[in-house]
Amino acid sequence: MTQEIIPVGYQGVPGAYSHLALQQYFEGKLVRAQNFMIFEDVVAAVMDGTVRYGVLPIENSSTGGITEVYDHVRRYGAFIVGEKIVKVEHCLLGLPGAKMEDITEVYSHPQGFSQCRDFFKKHPAMRQFNYYNTAKAAEMVAEKKELHKAAVAGAQAAEQYGLAILARGINTNQSNYTRFIIISRQQELAPDADKITLIVSLKHQPGSLYRVLSHFARYQINMTNIESRPIPGQPWEYYFHIDITGHLTDEPVQKALVDLPEDTTECKILGNYRADHGKEARS
Amino acid sequence: MTQEIIPVGYQGVPGAYSHLALQQYFEGKLVRAQNFMIFEDVVAAVMDGTVRYGVLPIENSSTGGITEVYDHVRRYGAFIVGEKIVKVEHCLLGLPGAKMEDITEVYSHPQGFSQCRDFFKKHPAMRQFNYYNTAKAAEMVAEKKELHKAAVAGAQAAEQYGLAILARGINTNQSNYTRFIIISRQQELAPDADKITLIVSLKHQPGSLYRVLSHFARYQINMTNIESRPIPGQPWEYYFHIDITGHLTDEPVQKALVDLPEDTTECKILGNYRADHGKEARS
Repeated sequence: MTQEIIPVGYQGVPGAYSHLALQQYFEGKLVRAQNFMIFEDVVAAVMDGTVRYGVLPIENSSTGGITEVYDHVRRYGAFIVGEKIVKVEHCLLGLPGAKMEDITEVYSHPQGFSQCRDFFKKHPAMRQFNYYNTAKAAEMVAEKKELHKAAVAGAQAAEQYGLAILARGINTNQSNYTRFIIISRQQELAPDADKITLIVSLKHQPGSLYRVLSHFARYQINMTNIESRPIPGQPWEYYFHIDITGHLTDEPVQKALVDLPEDTTECKILGNYRADHGKEARS
Repeated sequence: MTQEIIPVGYQGVPGAYSHLALQQYFEGKLVRAQNFMIFEDVVAAVMDGTVRYGVLPIENSSTGGITEVYDHVRRYGAFIVGEKIVKVEHCLLGLPGAKMEDITEVYSHPQGFSQCRDFFKKHPAMRQFNYYNTAKAAEMVAEKKELHKAAVAGAQAAEQYGLAILARGINTNQSNYTRFIIISRQQELAPDADKITLIVSLKHQPGSLYRVLSHFARYQINMTNIESRPIPGQPWEYYFHIDITGHLTDEPVQKALVDLPEDTTECKILGNYRADHGKEARS
């Protein structure tokens, strides 16, 4: 019996957090991961059929929504079929056999360093050098094979490039998560779906957002996220990405959705999928 | 009679759009403009008294809120005392005496080029070279004094560096505006103030944003903008920057503000100031 191989796209290099999210979401399935340089290329590859799914970061719990991804998903008309939350846990990665005291040069993305500021205060002998991204830094350290060189990257990059974890979880903020969405060209509706993502554009009149939210409140539907984005070419008008809990077959959800067009100029369901309720997920 | 010189900070170099916003907002006043490398340095300089005011971009009508600025303003506890909307209008700037057909090399920020894509399609002889930012590109062209070199930057950069405007308004999207806020260490309340910016953190319970907005709706207060930002260290909890119209001495505004703490864990008035109603402002 042959199992179907699913082609899935992500942005970045092997060992990056996007790659980890992909592996975790599709765990137990036969997947061919294909990496792309930029977010838009992933969305385009999903829409032209090069890959079946795409895995993209949509929100970080410390830095907020990744607005570029919201805009691409909307512009290309992609659908959301799943989500995966990944804990951002930076490690100091060195060559196998290297010890902490050997390390004098560390490579990472500037953001990787700034997220580990306290660690490097305690280790002033480690000089920091900026690199393209965390996973690329790990790759370079593995290739150079110099015992005094190390990288700041996720544990998955150690595995990817055959490095040793010299120190784990060295980031200052220990509750830092990135939420990824899984996108597709087709809508999918699983029976256990419990999260709905909508796009609504408001009528340009006072109180329109309030009235949109009133439809959810009336039917006791919980809104877990709202993100406003500008409508290009219409200065100071906005559309909203809204996440609510529920299934499209729920009666309250259907009633609320029927009411929405009263107060919106555009209303589109981007997807109804299973929220990530794992240990990394919302408390 | 001596007039007081007001020290004002902005991010970027002379001739940048931030500099233009500063000049337009403080028109007719004696100002000493001081530029800083990064947004955070402007906020820090305002808070430690190095400058009296800071001018910072808070929102672009095409690309959305500038979330980093929101976060700095909140973290440093700065207040908003004014706003200025500037039209983003890119020009092709060359040496005085240069003609369009002389130009074979153009320098600008990559975003400057992407915003002028249609113009460059019509002028394939002009090769594009990425540069640090639009105003820096203009400065370089002025210094090099080579007739075939030009820059894509705002008209204000032409004036700043003594260049000629070879083509005006070459950006594809002709309704592209950036909204700037003027920040201060102290609150100021002008009699003609008509816009209030608030920060609210919601109680972590269903419908809390809806109930916050209900207080505004009940007293017919118009909300012109809402921007959600994550609360660091509290994954998937948010605070909101909300702009409403009104003056703090209005009775409906006072009633709404008195009700807000019922549904919020934090509620702070960032400022009550005069909205920009100029020709560049919201329609």
